[in-house]
Amino acid sequence: MKATRHSAHATTNGWRKHRTRPSKRADGPPMLFDLDGTLVDAVYEHVVAWHQVLQQKKIALPCWKIHRQIGLSGKSFLPMLFREIGMERDAAEIKELEELHRHLYMQRIERTRVLPGARELLEHLTETGIPWAIGTSGEPEAVEPMLKLLGVPASAPVVLAKQTERGKPNPDVFFLGAEKLGVKLSGSVVVGDSVWDLLAAQRAKALGVGLLSGGYGRAELEGAGAYRIYQDPGDLLAHLEELGVQEEI
Amino acid sequence: MKATRHSAHATTNGWRKHRTRPSKRADGPPMLFDLDGTLVDAVYEHVVAWHQVLQQKKIALPCWKIHRQIGLSGKSFLPMLFREIGMERDAAEIKELEELHRHLYMQRIERTRVLPGARELLEHLTETGIPWAIGTSGEPEAVEPMLKLLGVPASAPVVLAKQTERGKPNPDVFFLGAEKLGVKLSGSVVVGDSVWDLLAAQRAKALGVGLLSGGYGRAELEGAGAYRIYQDPGDLLAHLEELGVQEEI
Repeated sequence: MKATRHSAHATTNGWRKHRTRPSKRADGPPMLFDLDGTLVDAVYEHVVAWHQVLQQKKIALPCWKIHRQIGLSGKSFLPMLFREIGMERDAAEIKELEELHRHLYMQRIERTRVLPGARELLEHLTETGIPWAIGTSGEPEAVEPMLKLLGVPASAPVVLAKQTERGKPNPDVFFLGAEKLGVKLSGSVVVGDSVWDLLAAQRAKALGVGLLSGGYGRAELEGAGAYRIYQDPGDLLAHLEELGVQEEI
Repeated sequence: MKATRHSAHATTNGWRKHRTRPSKRADGPPMLFDLDGTLVDAVYEHVVAWHQVLQQKKIALPCWKIHRQIGLSGKSFLPMLFREIGMERDAAEIKELEELHRHLYMQRIERTRVLPGARELLEHLTETGIPWAIGTSGEPEAVEPMLKLLGVPASAPVVLAKQTERGKPNPDVFFLGAEKLGVKLSGSVVVGDSVWDLLAAQRAKALGVGLLSGGYGRAELEGAGAYRIYQDPGDLLAHLEELGVQEEI
């Protein structure tokens, strides 16, 4: 594959056209990415799948409240929900709800697309030598096809919540991702669409960068400590220098 | 039906318990309500239905961008989208997309629920004599079952975008609603979940009140001129006095 530099600029359709020229090595902080809402457009399908799960269990929780919990690991989201509706915390019940969600979400997964510029961003980082990894609360079954859509090579470090003891907003998936890259998380950038990613970044003393592509408002991400906010991965790619990335001249 | 006053207070399940006592007549500004996202939990299903429509037409628009267009009339949303992707504005194509959306949304409508406190809020306003109406961009086919869920009497003024020349963010549906109530919109409160409702309120010199239940962030609603912001209709009901409603002592 020919190395390219994606000097992106916004076009009118919300996508970006890329001028192609040989890429150069670049210097910059390692980047740890969330997956759903950050690289792939999965948040809204997750919301309606969870809504359906809870309806089947006669639990009334409106979609906007579910939306704000997406990105938390199920281990964190469900116990909180149980407490809120006054149910006993029950490991078997939590497992059942997670199973049902997995089932309903997988029926929708074929409609999930990569977010604008996501492939190009990861390619560009790879080609210019900026280390990057992915840390996600997603289930292996749901993550695998997304990595394929994104063209993520098998060699890229991808950390699932299941591989860590504590899910987001604990920064464990990002710590493990940084470890696999052989870098310090505190010197890295965490890129996410939810406040949970940004809180994880804060806890790890990493720089948090927010994307609007998960449907949070700008001020919500700023309030959670986002250092910079972009629309989507393509918008971030167009502004890489703002994050301290510098190409060799 | 026994008249009740719904002095709501938040409970832990996001719903509210209502103490019941005889309601009194109240004095206060007329209220004009949006429907989807404001009284019923329909926004997220609309988003994924639109996403599916656009995918079928090979138009790539991520869900979060669709989300921020919900509440605009199709007449406003689709021409803007066409311009964004560089397509010719085409009345037949717009009609086809609207048809397809209606079809896909109606398949999902049985999962739509009323938002917490919506029925109680409308009942309370009726019983205390505060005039209210509904103004929506929704299609008649989709609006009808929602009014049933909400227990809206046939006598209540409900204005559809189709009955006006210009959809939101033009305030026409709210103007017509106020006219049907025999009140001035400029002395009324417009309650909505989207910035389009709040912009319509501003244009009509009405007081705009935002609800978070459509999935916008608080700052987005404030930025569009919301005078007050509540979580959902139940939360508004619990704070009616803040909007100038006063019960007879």
